[in-house]
Amino acid sequence: MSDIHADGAVPGFGIDAIHEAARRLTGQVVRTPLLNSPMLDDLVGARVLVKAECLQLTGSFKVRGALNALLALDEGARRAGIVTYSAGNHGQGVAAAARLAGCPAVIVMPSTAPRIKVDNCRWWGAETVLYDPRTEDREEITRRIREERGMTLIPPFDHPRVMAGQGTVGLEIAEQARQLGLTPDTVLVNCSGGGLAAGVITALDDAFPGLAHHIVEPAGFDKMARSLATGRVCANPRPPGGLMDALSGPAAGARPLAVLRQYDVTGLTATDQEVLAAMGTAHRLLKLVVEPGAAASLAALLSGKVDVRGGVVALVASGGNVDPSVYREALTD
Amino acid sequence: MSDIHADGAVPGFGIDAIHEAARRLTGQVVRTPLLNSPMLDDLVGARVLVKAECLQLTGSFKVRGALNALLALDEGARRAGIVTYSAGNHGQGVAAAARLAGCPAVIVMPSTAPRIKVDNCRWWGAETVLYDPRTEDREEITRRIREERGMTLIPPFDHPRVMAGQGTVGLEIAEQARQLGLTPDTVLVNCSGGGLAAGVITALDDAFPGLAHHIVEPAGFDKMARSLATGRVCANPRPPGGLMDALSGPAAGARPLAVLRQYDVTGLTATDQEVLAAMGTAHRLLKLVVEPGAAASLAALLSGKVDVRGGVVALVASGGNVDPSVYREALTD
Repeated sequence: MSDIHADGAVPGFGIDAIHEAARRLTGQVVRTPLLNSPMLDDLVGARVLVKAECLQLTGSFKVRGALNALLALDEGARRAGIVTYSAGNHGQGVAAAARLAGCPAVIVMPSTAPRIKVDNCRWWGAETVLYDPRTEDREEITRRIREERGMTLIPPFDHPRVMAGQGTVGLEIAEQARQLGLTPDTVLVNCSGGGLAAGVITALDDAFPGLAHHIVEPAGFDKMARSLATGRVCANPRPPGGLMDALSGPAAGARPLAVLRQYDVTGLTATDQEVLAAMGTAHRLLKLVVEPGAAASLAALLSGKVDVRGGVVALVASGGNVDPSVYREALTD
Repeated sequence: MSDIHADGAVPGFGIDAIHEAARRLTGQVVRTPLLNSPMLDDLVGARVLVKAECLQLTGSFKVRGALNALLALDEGARRAGIVTYSAGNHGQGVAAAARLAGCPAVIVMPSTAPRIKVDNCRWWGAETVLYDPRTEDREEITRRIREERGMTLIPPFDHPRVMAGQGTVGLEIAEQARQLGLTPDTVLVNCSGGGLAAGVITALDDAFPGLAHHIVEPAGFDKMARSLATGRVCANPRPPGGLMDALSGPAAGARPLAVLRQYDVTGLTATDQEVLAAMGTAHRLLKLVVEPGAAASLAALLSGKVDVRGGVVALVASGGNVDPSVYREALTD
């Protein structure tokens, strides 16, 4: 990405951009609660602060970044609307952002996407364009929509204003922790493309310098940890899929990588079994419905992959959109 | 109950007592969020505000009333501690209240109670006394503990300070609705003994005079509706039990009944099937784990048992302590 500076600075992104995003989003999205469970604290041996983004509009944090990017457009671009390709949480986030801002949106989705995901985007008022993933190219379809309708592409993570919007999750954690009189010394963030991780770590490091930063990826899909180790954007060694589908996208984002390289970030992984157990714990102790990818940080914490004893840990339960059949697996008697 | 005045006034209870409880509880219990889902609003045809008391300490509102009653005791009584008989949410609420106040607690439970409920009370630091429900009388056991140890009984609902503590749920709904710029015109409250219903309706009627009040009971366990109709405390026509176990206790409370009689309260019921469907809706749209009895109000609303179209409805998701086997039944594909 040619606009990333040699020192890793990403134009348009930083703590000021996150504060600007917070001003744009206030009153538009949900200020989700920062939850705590004394029994969970006891299990982990630390004070655990859970930012419940599963309670966000659309059931994930994604609407924050999409709405921030949209509201930063000029009047004409906003009127023309926005487009993205995503069958997942980002698609719904873009659809909801467009509804909140009163502009049109097109979501390009594979015709194989679950009916509920198509219906959800349509419910928010977005137009859905379905393509055959065996014969058609989603980027080509998206390019044509941009050209023909003057729409702006809102990418899922590799975009400074999307990253800044996700960073408002970190700002809120900092404010809510201070209201509780607590100073987090460790943060864990679920990571795929890295937009949420880059935003949250930037915001929390600004509020609590010296905080230990961890990203958590699915075991076998640790593209960001590999990217951090090699200094260049890496792809996963296997195709997308698996239980934590929200975290198994093909490649890390160049801009999120450039941001995360500026911090001392440790890469952790969580297995499917660890994540199912963490979803069960969130159900039992937090009364929250957390989707597999959103439970990765809690899974890493509960599996003892990081030493946090006696400290204050912040993590993001980043979404709650999970199929009932998967959720049932997480419930043990 | 001889201390109830001829006009129905209950000594020690009222809007001032609820404000006093709020001052005692601030910073001690969780100020739970008032959640909203645009998709839920669309289903119901009204703005629906869900007070998420399943996110409260111990997973239900019960700690509020118990802690308010405990903190109102004099120093000596507080040091001696508190006792109650409850295998359910009230037992855990009393145990947690005692821990928060740093005093001893004894929870008298049937030896047939699920292990998890005994363990939870012990986790909070309470002593549990198990009795054989076929041969022993819990009230006799509790009386002996009070005499021998000077402990104070904290009853589950028929107590002015317990009712006032539960009323803080209503105060918070009023404050949070106002922050959203909304004026509820209807409230639905799950009802068993009536402590929560009396507290919440008193607080909300004070904040929003003219509000329509509904209590929701399990079909076949409508003891409070019968009590309101006859003007005297009624028992259920059948023994406690069933899916909504938290709402199926044997009799309505005399003090809650006296309070509710002062308002124009409509009694609604919800069936097991309606409640399971409502739990599934809370899972899907709110990402909240709601226990059967706590989903009764949402069930009544979703089943169209009250005309709320175009209005603003407040309800309490009063708890989230549910067995995994029951929860699985609520999840449909």
